[in-house]
Amino acid sequence: MKKGIIKRKNISELRQDLVSGDWVVVATGRAKRPDVFASKEKRFHQLKTKCPFENPEESNKVKALIKYNFPGDHTWFVQVIPNKFPAFGKGICMYETRNGPYSWMDGVGFHEVIITRDHKKSLADFSIEEAELVVRAYQNRYLALKDADCIEYISIFHNHGSRAGASISHPHSQLIAIPVIPPDVGRSVIGSKNYYERNKKCVHCVMIDWERRKKERIIFENERFIAFCPFASRTAFEVRIFPKNHSPQFELISDIDRRGFSEALAAVLKKIHKGLNDPDYNFFIHTSPCNLGAYHYHWHLEILPKTAIWAGFELSTGIEISTAKPEEAAAYLRKIETRN
Amino acid sequence: MKKGIIKRKNISELRQDLVSGDWVVVATGRAKRPDVFASKEKRFHQLKTKCPFENPEESNKVKALIKYNFPGDHTWFVQVIPNKFPAFGKGICMYETRNGPYSWMDGVGFHEVIITRDHKKSLADFSIEEAELVVRAYQNRYLALKDADCIEYISIFHNHGSRAGASISHPHSQLIAIPVIPPDVGRSVIGSKNYYERNKKCVHCVMIDWERRKKERIIFENERFIAFCPFASRTAFEVRIFPKNHSPQFELISDIDRRGFSEALAAVLKKIHKGLNDPDYNFFIHTSPCNLGAYHYHWHLEILPKTAIWAGFELSTGIEISTAKPEEAAAYLRKIETRN
Repeated sequence: MKKGIIKRKNISELRQDLVSGDWVVVATGRAKRPDVFASKEKRFHQLKTKCPFENPEESNKVKALIKYNFPGDHTWFVQVIPNKFPAFGKGICMYETRNGPYSWMDGVGFHEVIITRDHKKSLADFSIEEAELVVRAYQNRYLALKDADCIEYISIFHNHGSRAGASISHPHSQLIAIPVIPPDVGRSVIGSKNYYERNKKCVHCVMIDWERRKKERIIFENERFIAFCPFASRTAFEVRIFPKNHSPQFELISDIDRRGFSEALAAVLKKIHKGLNDPDYNFFIHTSPCNLGAYHYHWHLEILPKTAIWAGFELSTGIEISTAKPEEAAAYLRKIETRN
Repeated sequence: MKKGIIKRKNISELRQDLVSGDWVVVATGRAKRPDVFASKEKRFHQLKTKCPFENPEESNKVKALIKYNFPGDHTWFVQVIPNKFPAFGKGICMYETRNGPYSWMDGVGFHEVIITRDHKKSLADFSIEEAELVVRAYQNRYLALKDADCIEYISIFHNHGSRAGASISHPHSQLIAIPVIPPDVGRSVIGSKNYYERNKKCVHCVMIDWERRKKERIIFENERFIAFCPFASRTAFEVRIFPKNHSPQFELISDIDRRGFSEALAAVLKKIHKGLNDPDYNFFIHTSPCNLGAYHYHWHLEILPKTAIWAGFELSTGIEISTAKPEEAAAYLRKIETRN
């Protein structure tokens, strides 16, 4: 009976995000076949000779904050530099200036770029070892900045392709450390706290447990990590990667967890790359704010392929409309082989 | 002294939205000159013969819900039809179905398209009278649907150009009536209520009053309406249009207010069209939810030119980075003549 109700024909489903309580719309009535979402545009690459990330220190007139190379390899594979055009930087910490009814303060923080060596080799082409070196850079820079004065949250993200906002095509991630807890993160942290207090359980652990039993939205799993299309996906083909064991803070992952996470990340990016014909995408880490010790939170990585444009409805309501069913997107991605 | 502080050189400013309490970033350190934002891409128009909005009733096999024409004109100038691919429609009202830890319900509601006659004539080319006919359609359809079963909020919006999410180039607006109060609207309504209770004043009236005294962010004003770039602009060249007198509900505007609003809307769109070389944009109305009687709220229209792409930082934090100062954007738009 219940199954009958779930399968009934409707125009769309309003699905509730279990953490934030917000609604998303899955337009079941006009859901498209998964392969329709494959990118039809050719990837654009800047000329190597004009690329500011070929020789980052020279082009950006900076000293790298840290470099990583593989044993026996004489040149760097990952390096981190300060962003030449930072969105956050020096200033007076949390000093609110009034301006009539308004207030503002300096955008105090850090803005770094994590660059990988090869101009055209994107993360979807990486081996587990290569992905792990990137994740190690994320972790080390996070640890280096988390106790800095005035820092409340550190956002680590990756934009792939110009439609996903990457202005430089050479593969790179970014780290922005900021003096406030961002509104979206704050709401999720409060949501997970409320759930914990009501149910004495981590809301993310409950979801992971359910997904592992049902299997309909899982796309990849190893011993320590799981990747699935969330029930309340914000966009078509959204994927989240979670550590299976409860852990609030990304920066505390062990060596063995970092390896498992890197394997999951590389596999999921390969599936998206192959299944959707190298689409543009964004991914980012959500983790407990630096000074909050949010024991009820559960860090994870979110990947959002650029399958749609936020238009008037989304901008005016904050409700996103996805035209693929997460269950169908997951079934499609699950089947894709990741061996090169 | 205070002025000195405000003008000090910083990388960026975190500006607080007075209503929601959220922060936005104005990247003052890398702020660009206003004219840099002018669109460099040529507008694309579908072939008239393939346009589903040339003869909407015939192409969409529907009967128009309402049509408007000018006195003495035999053909329609504005007509409203049901959306052929609706995001919301028939279903069971607010019947939450559990699915393990998750819940979902039918996307019950209405989805309509408000079409204007001329294939290539966008709202920025409209006379006040033409704009008024569009606004009248907005108002009438809102009034027709607001008491329908299950409807809690009605979003009216307009997408101009493919980069702003318009899949059909023929000018059209949309109305979506939904069974929940959207999260973003809910937060603004609560924010305005809290401000009212603390200060015994409407937060929007306070802002309007301040902007009228300072004049640095105003771009257009007539007897009853005011348009300015908000202090905490979400994107470069964002403009909001407010009725000067406190009024929570858009749908209750009088004939004379509708005329004043249409004049303001036409003028602002012309300024954006001329100043930014016909950029893509979204606009939408924010008004009190249908059944809430939010006396503390103040309806308005928001226009967001598509000057940037939401990337990893915005998606992971909900904090938007604008690379134009609202004061400079306003000074630039204010000077632009709107007479054709």
